Amino acid sequence: MFGTCLENVKKTAPLVHNITNYVTVNDVANVLLACGASPIMSDEPKDVADITSICGGLNINIGTLNERTIEGMFIAGRKANELSHPVLLDPVGAGASTLRTDTAVRLMEALTLTVIRGNISEIKALALGSSTTKGVDAAAADAVTEENLAAAAAFAKRFAQKCGCIVAITGAIDLVCDGTKCYVIRGGRPEMGRITGTGCQLSGMMTAFVTANPENQLEAAAAAVCAMGLAGEIAFARMEEGDGNAAYRNRIIDAIYNMDAKMLDKGADYEIR
Amino acid sequence: MFGTCLENVKKTAPLVHNITNYVTVNDVANVLLACGASPIMSDEPKDVADITSICGGLNINIGTLNERTIEGMFIAGRKANELSHPVLLDPVGAGASTLRTDTAVRLMEALTLTVIRGNISEIKALALGSSTTKGVDAAAADAVTEENLAAAAAFAKRFAQKCGCIVAITGAIDLVCDGTKCYVIRGGRPEMGRITGTGCQLSGMMTAFVTANPENQLEAAAAAVCAMGLAGEIAFARMEEGDGNAAYRNRIIDAIYNMDAKMLDKGADYEIR
Amino acid sequence: MFGTCLENVKKTAPLVHNITNYVTVNDVANVLLACGASPIMSDEPKDVADITSICGGLNINIGTLNERTIEGMFIAGRKANELSHPVLLDPVGAGASTLRTDTAVRLMEALTLTVIRGNISEIKALALGSSTTKGVDAAAADAVTEENLAAAAAFAKRFAQKCGCIVAITGAIDLVCDGTKCYVIRGGRPEMGRITGTGCQLSGMMTAFVTANPENQLEAAAAAVCAMGLAGEIAFARMEEGDGNAAYRNRIIDAIYNMDAKMLDKGADYEIR
Repeated sequence: MFGTCLENVKKTAPLVHNITNYVTVNDVANVLLACGASPIMSDEPKDVADITSICGGLNINIGTLNERTIEGMFIAGRKANELSHPVLLDPVGAGASTLRTDTAVRLMEALTLTVIRGNISEIKALALGSSTTKGVDAAAADAVTEENLAAAAAFAKRFAQKCGCIVAITGAIDLVCDGTKCYVIRGGRPEMGRITGTGCQLSGMMTAFVTANPENQLEAAAAAVCAMGLAGEIAFARMEEGDGNAAYRNRIIDAIYNMDAKMLDKGADYEIR
Repeated sequence: MFGTCLENVKKTAPLVHNITNYVTVNDVANVLLACGASPIMSDEPKDVADITSICGGLNINIGTLNERTIEGMFIAGRKANELSHPVLLDPVGAGASTLRTDTAVRLMEALTLTVIRGNISEIKALALGSSTTKGVDAAAADAVTEENLAAAAAFAKRFAQKCGCIVAITGAIDLVCDGTKCYVIRGGRPEMGRITGTGCQLSGMMTAFVTANPENQLEAAAAAVCAMGLAGEIAFARMEEGDGNAAYRNRIIDAIYNMDAKMLDKGADYEIR
Repeated sequence: MFGTCLENVKKTAPLVHNITNYVTVNDVANVLLACGASPIMSDEPKDVADITSICGGLNINIGTLNERTIEGMFIAGRKANELSHPVLLDPVGAGASTLRTDTAVRLMEALTLTVIRGNISEIKALALGSSTTKGVDAAAADAVTEENLAAAAAFAKRFAQKCGCIVAITGAIDLVCDGTKCYVIRGGRPEMGRITGTGCQLSGMMTAFVTANPENQLEAAAAAVCAMGLAGEIAFARMEEGDGNAAYRNRIIDAIYNMDAKMLDKGADYEIR
């Protein structure tokens, strides 16, 4: 099933409009190309409506937001809503600054979102108005573990219900849920946290997956998480003596490039709660 | 001959001012260093005139244009014209949005350009005021093929004549022409389209080539196209099991780094129409 | 001793706020993760004070400065001073444009800096109000050599004394000094100059080092320089047939990732003047 979601990306090659941070934007573009989608980046208020109009989906990432690009996020989001394009919000650093938390909350209020994808600290900041975020990384105290998994899944479902969209919380254990169904995914490697932007890459790829699978968006979002985790495992197995996070970064994108439906179906490690 | 153009880049190490998009800017800088040139990036209206003044050439790429950087493009372009520096325009996404098409057209009108380099859909958007562009990639319907090659070359020459500059249209078959002479170049690999920014890299490198070969700019522009295509072939031959577009990106820049005049002369695959 | 400085980065994992250029920002983030620190990027005036407040140190790099980010640099710098966080200034391109020189000078006047790190042409531009800078690279005429080393070290010390902070001048021979003590470091490889952003990466990493070693900042700054140089040597030894500057870039970050205290202590090549 997850394999079919990937196949649909490759078949339809969705054009994804990204308003994303300048730190990891190149990797986001390359991972979108790797999975069979096509990226375009535009954040200027006067440009975004036209660009979103020719795309299939919109990925909004607030990682290096500024006043101009925030305006672009709202204009693009409203146009995408008008056209019924899927919209993903990646609230990078929500909880770390007032501007980030407020912008994410205002985007949630103004737009119909398809997915919110973040780490647990970011999602808690949006859900509870507070968190113990450590910059753009999740705080250890917030982490989803086997011990608090039931509570975390319940929290994620409640938040998804409240938001009326899919919620994807990624970390050592990933949760992808709507108001009633929660995928618990255990793939990936801890070393992925030593690369900048695996979360941003996942947001880009997830936008492509939900765009290419309009009838099946929850599953598609979970498939994207599984694909990223599996790529992290495949890439890790290819690491050589002396390799570090730069090599790992490249190998993960390469693993997405070489992944097919069969590999994803076989390698996906998840349960449903 | 093309080898001499590359040699001149290595000998003179031209400093190239780039106003370019933040998606592929790092690769543009590294490919300029790889071919023997030296990059500097600056897009602030208050900074660009000074920066252009110490450079030899100017590369304007509208990939993630915004109101501030558009102003920078005009100021830098006018200063470069004043100093008789070569100016290249890469109209990324022309045809995909009104702002992009208009900005490219206004730049063409306001500035004396040395080269316009884009994919066929972008160039058609500028020449005909319309196209079927697919975001930042050329539309399949527009592609230059063996079948429509004569017509495409004639179109490119007419457009070059009208613009009074070199026109480089890159794709599976590349055309580099002025009003009377057209290089038809067949190098490269289709997999290059699965990497973000090979076009942007080529624009950066082409600016270095025309800067280092002031007496011979048409040939220099064609040499840059041949170098990029040849690098794509060399890099592809070095691909290993499990490699994908991230590895390929790095290997292409590495192939430019290791390319010398002899290799380029031997590997260039072109005819003149 | 230098090894202990690196160990302290790994132990305390300092969160470093970077206001840095979009050319090399991804490499800065990855090298910070590689050495055990944690990066966050934010340049919006309305965001930077909050972000700096949750960080341990601030890295200000003026590589692609604009009016908005310049304002962000001042706000972040003042907040960091208020909180007694270390602040590093990397005056990229000082001497190459009035805006760059003026901004760097104004930042030096407005802020209490912990370190100024640049190439010799940039530092001369700040110290003497003029230089023969070649864009963002040092001019050959300015280079620190074995012949002018005594004079260069004396110049660096005087400038450090005048500024009341550590001064790090990097090139073929690196100088890291305060008003009285100068580390002369001879590590690294000339090929590092063919990669964009090794200086920017060093500035990010040096900010992490001085943040993690508050009692020992001069030594920590020198340790960061030694680590980068040593990484350049280790990475060069791993280069394979056909590799170029893209592979080298990745391998340097990987070498930082795999470096431990013992390796750094053993590989550091320096004397004190």
